[in-house]
Amino acid sequence: MVNQDKTRAERAVVLLSGGIDSSTTAAMAMRDGYDVFALTFDYGQRHRVELNSAMKVAQALRIASHKIITLDLRQIGGSALTDHIKVPKSREIEEMSRSIPVTYVPARNMILLSVAVGWAEVINADAIFIGANAVDYSGYPDCRPEFLEAFAEMTRLGTRRGVEGSPVAIKAPLVKMTKAEIIRTGVELGVDYSLTTSCYDALPDGKACGSCDSCLLRKKGFAEAGVPDPTVYAEQRLSN
Amino acid sequence: MVNQDKTRAERAVVLLSGGIDSSTTAAMAMRDGYDVFALTFDYGQRHRVELNSAMKVAQALRIASHKIITLDLRQIGGSALTDHIKVPKSREIEEMSRSIPVTYVPARNMILLSVAVGWAEVINADAIFIGANAVDYSGYPDCRPEFLEAFAEMTRLGTRRGVEGSPVAIKAPLVKMTKAEIIRTGVELGVDYSLTTSCYDALPDGKACGSCDSCLLRKKGFAEAGVPDPTVYAEQRLSN
Repeated sequence: MVNQDKTRAERAVVLLSGGIDSSTTAAMAMRDGYDVFALTFDYGQRHRVELNSAMKVAQALRIASHKIITLDLRQIGGSALTDHIKVPKSREIEEMSRSIPVTYVPARNMILLSVAVGWAEVINADAIFIGANAVDYSGYPDCRPEFLEAFAEMTRLGTRRGVEGSPVAIKAPLVKMTKAEIIRTGVELGVDYSLTTSCYDALPDGKACGSCDSCLLRKKGFAEAGVPDPTVYAEQRLSN
Repeated sequence: MVNQDKTRAERAVVLLSGGIDSSTTAAMAMRDGYDVFALTFDYGQRHRVELNSAMKVAQALRIASHKIITLDLRQIGGSALTDHIKVPKSREIEEMSRSIPVTYVPARNMILLSVAVGWAEVINADAIFIGANAVDYSGYPDCRPEFLEAFAEMTRLGTRRGVEGSPVAIKAPLVKMTKAEIIRTGVELGVDYSLTTSCYDALPDGKACGSCDSCLLRKKGFAEAGVPDPTVYAEQRLSN
């Protein structure tokens, strides 16, 4: 079950949602020499176009192993991303990180990371990469560095690899980067952002709404990076 | 979404697998005055008779809210409890805690606890109870007190309740009890152990194998507690 071949490249599980952050994180893990195992969750997100984006990004980056796990968080509910709760629109960027919005999915990152730890134990991966970001973000508590450090310590104490002295590392290379820095890094590494999706509330045809927190952060990131935003937003189409 | 009624009893999510430990834990949470919300996972365990036991125990204890969540850990594999890996038999009790056995499900407790945290946030529960035990146990790293403490800290930092100053407590009242002490406590609280299941490798007719780690720990517990073991083991039937 466990690969003990020390000559192989180090393995990393990368949480890949299909957005800007996780796609850039995957490219960074590859740049760092990891053999990447991408992990995507079908958690019942209303923005299901994400799953297609994750598959396209994994293909474009030539990631050989990509697992999609079904874990329906609608079974516990409580979020605008899974329930029929209205997604807030046109908020000020500064307002987003001041309180936890209704798009917070209770315990999402700890759930997804825990499953990633389980898979990492099975394939004997050395690290888990997550595109968590605490600069240009929506104010989710489980994106902060202190949460990620506590998660790593919990993982060290609760796993076979931890007990055996080589705990799975939890890596969040974007955590202190601005969205513009993330986009510039991704462009350098050849990430095709036209394949990515950020919108929390996409239209049935897949177009981004342009006004949810995630769209606003995305627009600001491209603008500040000086990179053309390849996204087709719904309001652009409407104004034509 | 969040119940702010301060006159209500405190709420607790109790992880209920249908075994001795979790059933006793549920009874202890009720004794302590909690309004219990039982949470059972259909994680693809081979010992599926567990799910029936959990339902019977919840009913017998008159637990009003019992949620069964599907989260198929066969998607990541790596354990004798979910894969077609042979369950070890007739080991010495002392041998069990010396190394991590093949029945260890990678990251199981952190995954199940994380989902429990998510549900606790949604129903505004104050505590999560888990029947983890580090005395008469199978040597799983994620049953140890140090893991549970680290999990609680990670939860404090990664959740809405934690950020707001009232983190969900992680309670493991059995962690330092022997199996005999657990059984005596349960008997006092009226737990009907004939409804519970422990076997990792039950026969198709639901009879316990009598020789896996879990059956051996169960037998030893009843013997040491001086309580008749209500379990029907397969080898007893064969010897008739």
